[in-house]
Amino acid sequence: MQKLKCTVSYDGTFFSGFQIQPNKRTVQQEIENAIMQIHNGEKIRIYSSGRTDTGVHARGQVFHFETNLTIPESNWKKAFNAILPNDIYMKQVERVPMSFHARFDATQKEYRYFVLNSKEPDVFKRNLTHHDPWENDIDAILVACEAFKGTHDFTSFCSARTTVKGSKVRTLSEVSCKREGNELQFILKGDGFLYNMARIIVGVLLEAGKGNLTTADIEDMFQKKDRTVVGKTLPPTGLFLWEVSYK
Amino acid sequence: MQKLKCTVSYDGTFFSGFQIQPNKRTVQQEIENAIMQIHNGEKIRIYSSGRTDTGVHARGQVFHFETNLTIPESNWKKAFNAILPNDIYMKQVERVPMSFHARFDATQKEYRYFVLNSKEPDVFKRNLTHHDPWENDIDAILVACEAFKGTHDFTSFCSARTTVKGSKVRTLSEVSCKREGNELQFILKGDGFLYNMARIIVGVLLEAGKGNLTTADIEDMFQKKDRTVVGKTLPPTGLFLWEVSYK
Repeated sequence: MQKLKCTVSYDGTFFSGFQIQPNKRTVQQEIENAIMQIHNGEKIRIYSSGRTDTGVHARGQVFHFETNLTIPESNWKKAFNAILPNDIYMKQVERVPMSFHARFDATQKEYRYFVLNSKEPDVFKRNLTHHDPWENDIDAILVACEAFKGTHDFTSFCSARTTVKGSKVRTLSEVSCKREGNELQFILKGDGFLYNMARIIVGVLLEAGKGNLTTADIEDMFQKKDRTVVGKTLPPTGLFLWEVSYK
Repeated sequence: MQKLKCTVSYDGTFFSGFQIQPNKRTVQQEIENAIMQIHNGEKIRIYSSGRTDTGVHARGQVFHFETNLTIPESNWKKAFNAILPNDIYMKQVERVPMSFHARFDATQKEYRYFVLNSKEPDVFKRNLTHHDPWENDIDAILVACEAFKGTHDFTSFCSARTTVKGSKVRTLSEVSCKREGNELQFILKGDGFLYNMARIIVGVLLEAGKGNLTTADIEDMFQKKDRTVVGKTLPPTGLFLWEVSYK
Protein backbone atom coordinates (compact mmCIF):
# COMPACT_ATOMS: atom_id res chain seq x y z
CA MET A 1 0.00 0.00 0.00
CA GLN A 2 1.22 3.49 -0.80
CA LYS A 3 -0.19 6.98 -0.53
CA LEU A 4 -0.12 9.47 -3.41
CA LYS A 5 -0.44 13.25 -3.24
CA CYS A 6 -1.91 14.75 -6.41
CA THR A 7 -1.92 18.39 -7.57
CA VAL A 8 -4.65 19.07 -10.09
CA SER A 9 -6.01 22.06 -12.00
CA TYR A 10 -9.55 22.35 -13.29
CA ASP A 11 -11.79 24.78 -15.06
CA GLY A 12 -14.81 24.87 -12.72
CA THR A 13 -17.22 26.19 -15.35
CA PHE A 14 -18.93 22.92 -16.14
CA PHE A 15 -18.72 21.30 -12.71
CA SER A 16 -21.17 21.40 -9.83
CA GLY A 17 -18.18 21.99 -7.59
CA PHE A 18 -15.55 19.60 -6.34
CA GLN A 19 -17.45 17.34 -3.97
CA ILE A 20 -19.40 14.30 -5.14
CA GLN A 21 -23.17 14.76 -5.37
CA PRO A 22 -25.68 12.36 -6.91
CA ASN A 23 -26.54 13.05 -10.57
CA LYS A 24 -24.19 16.02 -10.83
CA ARG A 25 -20.93 16.39 -12.71
CA THR A 26 -18.29 17.00 -10.06
CA VAL A 27 -14.49 17.11 -10.09
CA GLN A 28 -14.23 14.43 -7.41
CA GLN A 29 -16.47 12.08 -9.39
CA GLU A 30 -14.40 12.50 -12.57
CA ILE A 31 -11.16 11.87 -10.67
CA GLU A 32 -12.56 8.86 -8.82
CA ASN A 33 -13.83 7.49 -12.15
CA ALA A 34 -10.31 7.83 -13.56
CA ILE A 35 -8.81 6.11 -10.52
CA MET A 36 -11.38 3.30 -10.84
CA GLN A 37 -10.39 2.83 -14.48
CA ILE A 38 -6.69 2.72 -13.59
CA HIS A 39 -7.50 0.14 -10.87
CA ASN A 40 -9.63 -2.09 -13.13
CA GLY A 41 -12.92 -1.25 -11.46
CA GLU A 42 -11.82 -0.96 -7.87
CA LYS A 43 -13.51 1.99 -6.12
CA ILE A 44 -11.09 4.22 -4.22
CA ARG A 45 -11.99 7.38 -2.32
CA ILE A 46 -9.92 10.57 -2.66
CA TYR A 47 -9.44 13.20 0.07
CA SER A 48 -8.97 16.82 -1.00
CA SER A 49 -7.61 19.89 0.77
CA GLY A 50 -11.23 21.09 0.80
CA ARG A 51 -14.16 21.49 -1.55
CA THR A 52 -14.60 24.23 -4.13
CA ASP A 53 -18.03 25.57 -5.12
CA THR A 54 -19.86 25.33 -8.41
CA GLY A 55 -18.04 27.41 -11.04
CA VAL A 56 -14.92 27.94 -8.90
CA HIS A 57 -11.63 27.01 -10.57
CA ALA A 58 -8.43 25.48 -9.27
CA ARG A 59 -4.91 26.07 -10.46
CA GLY A 60 -3.51 23.83 -7.72
CA GLN A 61 -6.04 21.75 -5.79
CA VAL A 62 -4.46 18.93 -3.78
CA PHE A 63 -5.87 15.52 -2.87
CA HIS A 64 -4.52 12.16 -1.72
CA PHE A 65 -5.51 8.53 -2.10
CA GLU A 66 -4.15 5.11 -1.28
CA THR A 67 -3.32 2.42 -3.78
CA ASN A 68 -1.97 -1.11 -3.99
CA LEU A 69 -0.78 -0.64 -7.56
CA THR A 70 2.94 -0.58 -8.18
CA ILE A 71 2.96 1.87 -11.09
CA PRO A 72 6.22 3.91 -11.06
CA GLU A 73 5.63 7.36 -9.55
CA SER A 74 6.50 9.07 -12.86
CA ASN A 75 3.80 7.17 -14.81
CA TRP A 76 0.83 8.17 -12.66
CA LYS A 77 0.53 11.66 -14.14
CA LYS A 78 0.38 10.29 -17.70
CA ALA A 79 -2.13 7.63 -16.68
CA PHE A 80 -4.43 10.28 -15.17
CA ASN A 81 -4.17 12.72 -18.08
CA ALA A 82 -4.93 9.97 -20.58
CA ILE A 83 -8.30 9.41 -18.88
CA LEU A 84 -9.37 12.71 -17.29
CA PRO A 85 -11.73 14.99 -19.27
CA ASN A 86 -10.11 18.03 -20.87
CA ASP A 87 -11.25 20.47 -18.17
CA ILE A 88 -9.17 18.65 -15.54
CA TYR A 89 -5.39 18.41 -15.77
CA MET A 90 -3.15 16.44 -13.44
CA LYS A 91 -0.06 18.54 -12.75
CA GLN A 92 1.85 16.36 -10.31
CA VAL A 93 1.66 12.99 -8.55
CA GLU A 94 4.09 12.31 -5.70
CA ARG A 95 4.45 9.47 -3.27
CA VAL A 96 4.02 10.69 0.34
CA PRO A 97 4.25 9.09 3.80
CA MET A 98 1.15 7.13 4.85
CA SER A 99 0.58 9.77 7.55
CA PHE A 100 0.01 12.55 4.98
CA HIS A 101 -3.48 14.08 4.79
CA ALA A 102 -4.37 16.63 2.07
CA ARG A 103 -6.80 18.48 4.33
CA PHE A 104 -5.36 18.23 7.82
CA ASP A 105 -1.73 18.82 6.82
CA ALA A 106 -2.41 21.93 4.73
CA THR A 107 -0.68 24.90 6.36
CA GLN A 108 -1.82 27.62 3.98
CA LYS A 109 -4.22 28.18 1.13
CA GLU A 110 -3.96 30.81 -1.54
CA TYR A 111 -6.97 32.04 -3.47
CA ARG A 112 -6.91 34.50 -6.36
CA TYR A 113 -9.88 36.41 -7.69
CA PHE A 114 -9.80 37.94 -11.18
CA VAL A 115 -11.91 40.95 -12.10
CA LEU A 116 -12.28 42.24 -15.64
CA ASN A 117 -12.53 45.94 -14.87
CA SER A 118 -13.57 47.36 -18.24
CA LYS A 119 -16.66 49.10 -19.55
CA GLU A 120 -17.38 46.29 -21.99
CA PRO A 121 -17.55 42.58 -21.11
CA ASP A 122 -15.36 40.07 -22.96
CA VAL A 123 -16.88 36.79 -24.18
CA PHE A 124 -13.48 35.11 -23.96
CA LYS A 125 -13.13 35.87 -20.25
CA ARG A 126 -16.73 35.35 -19.18
CA ASN A 127 -16.06 32.09 -17.30
CA LEU A 128 -12.70 33.03 -15.78
CA THR A 129 -13.29 36.56 -14.46
CA HIS A 130 -15.97 38.63 -12.79
CA HIS A 131 -16.89 41.60 -14.93
CA ASP A 132 -17.05 44.93 -13.07
CA PRO A 133 -17.75 47.84 -15.45
CA TRP A 134 -17.28 50.58 -12.83
CA GLU A 135 -14.11 52.49 -12.03
CA ASN A 136 -12.02 51.30 -9.10
CA ASP A 137 -9.31 53.20 -7.25
CA ILE A 138 -6.53 50.67 -6.67
CA ASP A 139 -5.07 52.76 -3.83
CA ALA A 140 -8.38 52.69 -1.96
CA ILE A 141 -8.50 48.91 -2.49
CA LEU A 142 -4.98 48.51 -1.11
CA VAL A 143 -5.86 50.52 2.00
CA ALA A 144 -8.93 48.32 2.57
CA CYS A 145 -6.79 45.16 2.11
CA GLU A 146 -4.88 46.10 5.28
CA ALA A 147 -8.05 45.83 7.35
CA PHE A 148 -8.35 42.13 6.46
CA LYS A 149 -4.78 41.11 7.19
CA GLY A 150 -3.96 39.26 10.38
CA THR A 151 -6.15 37.31 12.80
CA HIS A 152 -9.88 38.09 12.95
CA ASP A 153 -13.23 36.51 13.62
CA PHE A 154 -14.61 36.28 10.07
CA THR A 155 -18.26 35.57 11.04
CA SER A 156 -19.46 38.61 9.06
CA PHE A 157 -17.48 37.48 6.02
CA CYS A 158 -18.69 33.92 5.58
CA SER A 159 -21.92 32.51 4.26
CA ALA A 160 -24.69 32.03 6.84
CA ARG A 161 -24.92 28.54 5.30
CA THR A 162 -21.48 27.59 6.64
CA THR A 163 -21.30 24.19 8.32
CA VAL A 164 -18.43 25.32 10.57
CA LYS A 165 -19.66 25.09 14.15
CA GLY A 166 -16.42 25.99 15.92
CA SER A 167 -14.33 29.11 15.81
CA LYS A 168 -14.55 31.44 12.84
CA VAL A 169 -11.23 32.99 13.73
CA ARG A 170 -8.80 32.77 10.82
CA THR A 171 -5.48 34.40 9.99
CA LEU A 172 -4.81 35.98 6.61
CA SER A 173 -1.11 36.47 5.92
CA GLU A 174 -1.68 38.28 2.62
CA VAL A 175 -4.53 40.32 1.19
CA SER A 176 -3.45 42.29 -1.86
CA CYS A 177 -4.45 43.47 -5.29
CA LYS A 178 -2.63 44.32 -8.49
CA ARG A 179 -3.82 45.80 -11.74
CA GLU A 180 -2.62 44.32 -15.05
CA GLY A 181 -4.15 46.17 -17.98
CA ASN A 182 -7.90 46.10 -17.43
CA GLU A 183 -7.70 43.18 -15.00
CA LEU A 184 -7.62 43.34 -11.21
CA GLN A 185 -6.01 40.35 -9.52
CA PHE A 186 -6.80 39.85 -5.83
CA ILE A 187 -4.51 37.59 -3.80
CA LEU A 188 -5.60 36.09 -0.50
CA LYS A 189 -3.44 33.76 1.59
CA GLY A 190 -4.48 32.32 4.90
CA ASP A 191 -4.49 29.36 7.24
CA GLY A 192 -8.10 28.65 6.34
CA PHE A 193 -11.09 30.07 4.49
CA LEU A 194 -14.73 29.82 5.58
CA TYR A 195 -17.59 29.19 3.18
CA ASN A 196 -17.72 31.99 0.53
CA MET A 197 -15.16 33.99 2.54
CA ALA A 198 -12.86 34.87 -0.37
CA ARG A 199 -15.75 35.99 -2.58
CA ILE A 200 -17.32 38.11 0.20
CA ILE A 201 -14.02 39.80 1.07
CA VAL A 202 -13.24 40.69 -2.56
CA GLY A 203 -16.77 42.09 -2.86
CA VAL A 204 -16.01 44.43 0.04
CA LEU A 205 -12.65 45.39 -1.50
CA LEU A 206 -14.41 46.35 -4.75
CA GLU A 207 -16.83 48.52 -2.78
CA ALA A 208 -13.81 50.21 -1.18
CA GLY A 209 -12.40 50.70 -4.69
CA LYS A 210 -15.54 52.66 -5.58
CA GLY A 211 -15.27 54.83 -2.48
CA ASN A 212 -18.40 53.28 -0.95
CA LEU A 213 -16.75 52.22 2.29
CA THR A 214 -13.70 52.88 4.45
CA THR A 215 -11.42 50.98 6.80
CA ALA A 216 -13.62 52.12 9.72
CA ASP A 217 -16.64 50.53 7.99
CA ILE A 218 -14.75 47.24 7.57
CA GLU A 219 -13.70 47.27 11.23
CA ASP A 220 -17.32 47.85 12.15
CA MET A 221 -18.37 44.86 10.00
CA PHE A 222 -15.86 42.65 11.83
CA GLN A 223 -17.24 43.76 15.21
CA LYS A 224 -20.90 43.15 14.32
CA LYS A 225 -20.22 39.43 13.60
CA ASP A 226 -23.24 39.38 11.30
CA ARG A 227 -23.20 38.31 7.65
CA THR A 228 -26.12 40.62 6.82
CA VAL A 229 -24.09 43.80 7.45
CA VAL A 230 -21.76 42.94 4.54
CA GLY A 231 -22.59 43.18 0.82
CA LYS A 232 -23.26 40.35 -1.57
CA THR A 233 -21.08 37.37 -2.45
CA LEU A 234 -19.32 37.82 -5.81
CA PRO A 235 -19.89 35.18 -8.51
CA PRO A 236 -17.65 32.09 -8.59
CA THR A 237 -16.33 32.76 -12.12
CA GLY A 238 -13.41 34.93 -10.93
CA LEU A 239 -12.26 32.64 -8.12
CA PHE A 240 -9.28 30.26 -8.31
CA LEU A 241 -7.93 27.98 -5.60
CA TRP A 242 -4.39 28.93 -6.52
CA GLU A 243 -2.14 26.91 -4.25
CA VAL A 244 -2.24 24.72 -1.16
CA SER A 245 0.91 24.66 0.97
CA TYR A 246 2.22 21.86 3.20
CA LYS A 247 5.07 21.63 5.69
CA MET B 1 -36.28 50.49 -44.43
CA GLN B 2 -32.76 50.87 -43.10
CA LYS B 3 -29.60 48.80 -43.16
CA LEU B 4 -27.55 48.06 -40.05
CA LYS B 5 -23.92 46.97 -39.86
CA CYS B 6 -23.14 44.90 -36.77
CA THR B 7 -19.77 44.01 -35.24
CA VAL B 8 -19.96 40.96 -33.04
CA SER B 9 -17.56 38.80 -31.02
CA TYR B 10 -18.13 35.17 -30.16
CA ASP B 11 -16.42 32.28 -28.47
CA GLY B 12 -16.64 29.60 -31.15
CA THR B 13 -16.14 26.68 -28.74
CA PHE B 14 -19.77 25.60 -28.53
CA PHE B 15 -20.84 26.51 -32.06
CA SER B 16 -20.85 24.43 -35.22
CA GLY B 17 -19.39 27.44 -36.95
CA PHE B 18 -21.06 30.63 -38.10
CA GLN B 19 -23.30 29.50 -40.93
CA ILE B 20 -26.80 28.11 -40.36
CA GLN B 21 -27.10 24.32 -40.58
CA PRO B 22 -30.11 22.23 -39.65
CA ASN B 23 -30.10 20.84 -36.08
CA LYS B 24 -26.79 22.49 -35.18
CA ARG B 25 -26.06 25.39 -32.87
CA THR B 26 -24.59 28.11 -35.07
CA VAL B 27 -23.76 31.79 -34.53
CA GLN B 28 -25.96 32.87 -37.43
CA GLN B 29 -28.94 30.97 -36.02
CA GLU B 30 -28.56 32.56 -32.58
CA ILE B 31 -28.29 36.04 -34.09
CA GLU B 32 -31.26 35.49 -36.42
CA ASN B 33 -33.26 34.19 -33.44
CA ALA B 34 -32.44 37.40 -31.55
CA ILE B 35 -33.43 39.54 -34.54
CA MET B 36 -36.69 37.59 -34.87
CA GLN B 37 -37.45 38.25 -31.21
CA ILE B 38 -36.72 41.98 -31.62
CA HIS B 39 -39.03 42.01 -34.66
CA ASN B 40 -41.91 40.15 -32.95
CA GLY B 41 -41.50 36.96 -34.93
CA GLU B 42 -40.54 38.34 -38.32
CA LYS B 43 -37.77 36.30 -39.94
CA ILE B 44 -34.88 38.38 -41.25
CA ARG B 45 -31.72 37.05 -42.90
CA ILE B 46 -28.26 38.37 -41.96
CA TYR B 47 -25.26 38.58 -44.30
CA SER B 48 -21.79 38.17 -42.81
CA SER B 49 -18.31 39.04 -44.05
CA GLY B 50 -17.84 35.27 -44.43
CA ARG B 51 -18.32 32.11 -42.45
CA THR B 52 -16.07 30.83 -39.68
CA ASP B 53 -15.57 27.12 -39.00
CA THR B 54 -16.59 25.03 -36.01
CA GLY B 55 -14.56 26.10 -32.97
CA VAL B 56 -13.15 29.25 -34.61
CA HIS B 57 -13.65 32.46 -32.62
CA ALA B 58 -14.34 36.03 -33.65
CA ARG B 59 -13.24 39.20 -31.98
CA GLY B 60 -14.79 41.32 -34.73
CA GLN B 61 -17.06 39.49 -37.18
CA VAL B 62 -19.24 41.83 -39.26
CA PHE B 63 -22.71 41.26 -40.71
CA HIS B 64 -25.56 43.38 -42.01
CA PHE B 65 -29.32 43.13 -42.15
CA GLU B 66 -32.29 45.25 -43.15
CA THR B 67 -35.08 46.36 -40.84
CA ASN B 68 -38.27 48.39 -40.84
CA LEU B 69 -38.05 49.06 -37.12
CA THR B 70 -37.35 52.62 -36.03
CA ILE B 71 -35.36 51.82 -32.90
CA PRO B 72 -32.75 54.56 -32.27
CA GLU B 73 -29.31 53.42 -33.47
CA SER B 74 -27.92 53.56 -29.91
CA ASN B 75 -30.53 51.12 -28.54
CA TRP B 76 -29.85 48.27 -30.95
CA LYS B 77 -26.71 47.08 -29.16
CA LYS B 78 -28.53 46.84 -25.82
CA ALA B 79 -31.47 45.06 -27.44
CA PHE B 80 -29.14 42.44 -28.93
CA ASN B 81 -27.10 41.88 -25.79
CA ALA B 82 -30.24 41.46 -23.70
CA ILE B 83 -31.21 38.47 -25.88
CA LEU B 84 -28.00 36.90 -27.24
CA PRO B 85 -26.49 33.93 -25.35
CA ASN B 86 -23.45 34.71 -23.23
CA ASP B 87 -20.94 33.38 -25.78
CA ILE B 88 -21.94 36.06 -28.31
CA TYR B 89 -21.48 39.75 -27.61
CA MET B 90 -22.67 42.59 -29.82
CA LYS B 91 -19.95 45.23 -29.88
CA GLN B 92 -21.38 47.81 -32.26
CA VAL B 93 -24.45 48.50 -34.39
CA GLU B 94 -24.26 51.30 -36.95
CA ARG B 95 -26.65 52.53 -39.61
CA VAL B 96 -25.08 52.23 -43.08
CA PRO B 97 -26.14 53.17 -46.63
CA MET B 98 -28.50 50.66 -48.29
CA SER B 99 -25.70 49.84 -50.74
CA PHE B 100 -23.43 48.42 -47.98
CA HIS B 101 -22.63 44.69 -48.08
CA ALA B 102 -20.69 43.01 -45.23
CA ARG B 103 -19.08 40.51 -47.58
CA PHE B 104 -18.57 42.31 -50.87
CA ASP B 105 -17.44 45.63 -49.35
CA ALA B 106 -14.82 44.11 -47.05
CA THR B 107 -11.38 45.35 -48.11
CA GLN B 108 -9.26 43.42 -45.62
CA LYS B 109 -9.56 40.67 -43.07
CA GLU B 110 -7.30 40.10 -40.12
CA TYR B 111 -6.93 36.71 -38.46
CA ARG B 112 -4.89 35.96 -35.36
CA TYR B 113 -3.79 32.53 -34.22
CA PHE B 114 -2.74 31.92 -30.62
CA VAL B 115 -0.34 29.15 -29.67
CA LEU B 116 0.37 28.14 -26.08
CA ASN B 117 4.02 27.22 -26.47
CA SER B 118 4.75 25.55 -23.14
CA LYS B 119 5.68 22.04 -22.06
CA GLU B 120 2.48 21.66 -20.05
CA PRO B 121 -1.03 22.36 -21.35
CA ASP B 122 -3.29 24.82 -19.51
CA VAL B 123 -6.94 23.88 -18.86
CA PHE B 124 -7.88 27.56 -18.81
CA LYS B 125 -6.60 28.15 -22.34
CA ARG B 126 -7.65 24.85 -23.91
CA ASN B 127 -10.44 26.38 -26.03
CA LEU B 128 -8.69 29.63 -26.98
CA THR B 129 -5.20 28.46 -27.99
CA HIS B 130 -3.48 25.61 -29.77
CA HIS B 131 -1.04 23.87 -27.46
CA ASP B 132 2.41 23.24 -28.95
CA PRO B 133 4.79 21.69 -26.38
CA TRP B 134 7.88 21.87 -28.61
CA GLU B 135 10.47 24.63 -28.78
CA ASN B 136 10.10 27.23 -31.52
CA ASP B 137 12.69 29.67 -32.78
CA ILE B 138 10.86 32.97 -33.25
CA ASP B 139 13.54 34.26 -35.64
CA ALA B 140 13.09 31.25 -37.92
CA ILE B 141 9.32 31.85 -37.84
CA LEU B 142 9.79 35.52 -38.78
CA VAL B 143 11.99 34.57 -41.74
CA ALA B 144 9.33 32.11 -42.93
CA CYS B 145 6.61 34.78 -42.55
CA GLU B 146 8.30 36.78 -45.29
CA ALA B 147 7.71 33.98 -47.81
CA PHE B 148 3.93 34.34 -47.37
CA LYS B 149 3.72 38.11 -47.73
CA GLY B 150 2.50 39.61 -50.98
CA THR B 151 0.50 38.17 -53.84
CA HIS B 152 0.57 34.39 -54.40
CA ASP B 153 -1.53 31.52 -55.69
CA PHE B 154 -2.49 29.85 -52.38
CA THR B 155 -3.74 26.55 -53.87
CA SER B 156 -1.27 24.54 -51.77
CA PHE B 157 -2.39 26.37 -48.64
CA CYS B 158 -6.15 25.88 -48.73
CA SER B 159 -8.32 22.88 -48.02
CA ALA B 160 -8.96 20.57 -50.96
CA ARG B 161 -12.61 20.89 -49.87
CA THR B 162 -12.70 24.58 -50.83
CA THR B 163 -15.75 25.65 -52.82
CA VAL B 164 -13.81 28.44 -54.53
CA LYS B 165 -13.81 27.69 -58.25
CA GLY B 166 -12.09 30.83 -59.49
CA SER B 167 -8.66 32.22 -58.76
CA LYS B 168 -6.82 31.19 -55.64
CA VAL B 169 -4.56 34.20 -55.89
CA ARG B 170 -4.70 36.30 -52.72
CA THR B 171 -2.58 39.11 -51.31
CA LEU B 172 -1.37 39.07 -47.72
CA SER B 173 -0.27 42.50 -46.50
CA GLU B 174 0.95 41.24 -43.13
CA VAL B 175 2.20 37.88 -41.86
CA SER B 176 3.92 38.20 -38.51
CA CYS B 177 4.43 36.62 -35.13
CA LYS B 178 5.19 37.88 -31.65
CA ARG B 179 5.98 36.07 -28.43
CA GLU B 180 4.33 37.19 -25.18
CA GLY B 181 5.45 35.00 -22.29
CA ASN B 182 4.71 31.43 -23.33
CA GLU B 183 2.24 32.48 -26.02
CA LEU B 184 2.91 32.92 -29.73
CA GLN B 185 0.55 35.28 -31.50
CA PHE B 186 0.39 35.01 -35.29
CA ILE B 187 -1.10 37.93 -37.23
CA LEU B 188 -2.32 37.54 -40.81
CA LYS B 189 -3.91 40.32 -42.83
CA GLY B 190 -5.09 39.96 -46.38
CA ASP B 191 -7.66 40.80 -49.01
CA GLY B 192 -9.15 37.34 -48.67
CA PHE B 193 -8.59 33.95 -47.08
CA LEU B 194 -9.38 30.58 -48.66
CA TYR B 195 -10.87 27.66 -46.72
CA ASN B 196 -8.51 26.70 -43.83
CA MET B 197 -5.80 28.97 -45.28
CA ALA B 198 -4.90 30.74 -42.01
CA ARG B 199 -4.66 27.46 -40.09
CA ILE B 200 -2.54 25.79 -42.80
CA ILE B 201 -0.13 28.75 -43.05
CA VAL B 202 0.40 28.93 -39.27
CA GLY B 203 1.03 25.17 -39.29
CA VAL B 204 3.86 25.73 -41.79
CA LEU B 205 5.22 28.64 -39.73
CA LEU B 206 5.38 26.39 -36.65
CA GLU B 207 7.29 23.79 -38.68
CA ALA B 208 9.72 26.54 -39.68
CA GLY B 209 10.01 27.45 -35.99
CA LYS B 210 11.20 23.91 -35.31
CA GLY B 211 13.77 24.04 -38.10
CA ASN B 212 11.86 21.49 -40.18
CA LEU B 213 11.59 23.65 -43.29
CA THR B 214 13.10 26.70 -44.93
CA THR B 215 12.01 29.58 -47.15
CA ALA B 216 13.06 27.52 -50.19
CA ASP B 217 10.72 24.72 -49.06
CA ILE B 218 7.83 27.18 -48.75
CA GLU B 219 8.53 28.60 -52.21
CA ASP B 220 8.51 25.04 -53.53
CA MET B 221 5.14 24.41 -51.87
CA PHE B 222 3.71 27.49 -53.59
CA GLN B 223 4.96 26.28 -56.97
CA LYS B 224 3.57 22.76 -56.64
CA LYS B 225 -0.01 24.11 -56.26
CA ASP B 226 -0.95 20.94 -54.38
CA ARG B 227 -2.48 20.81 -50.89
CA THR B 228 -0.89 17.40 -50.21
CA VAL B 229 2.66 18.80 -50.22
CA VAL B 230 1.88 20.94 -47.14
CA GLY B 231 1.48 19.68 -43.55
CA LYS B 232 -1.71 19.35 -41.61
CA THR B 233 -4.32 21.99 -40.76
CA LEU B 234 -4.00 23.26 -37.18
CA PRO B 235 -7.01 22.95 -34.87
CA PRO B 236 -9.60 25.76 -34.83
CA THR B 237 -9.16 26.54 -31.10
CA GLY B 238 -6.35 29.05 -31.66
CA LEU B 239 -7.97 30.96 -34.52
CA PHE B 240 -9.73 34.31 -34.20
CA LEU B 241 -11.34 36.39 -36.95
CA TRP B 242 -9.86 39.53 -35.47
CA GLU B 243 -11.09 42.39 -37.62
CA VAL B 244 -12.83 43.07 -40.93
CA SER B 245 -12.02 46.37 -42.61
CA TYR B 246 -14.17 48.45 -44.95
CA LYS B 247 -13.52 51.54 -47.03
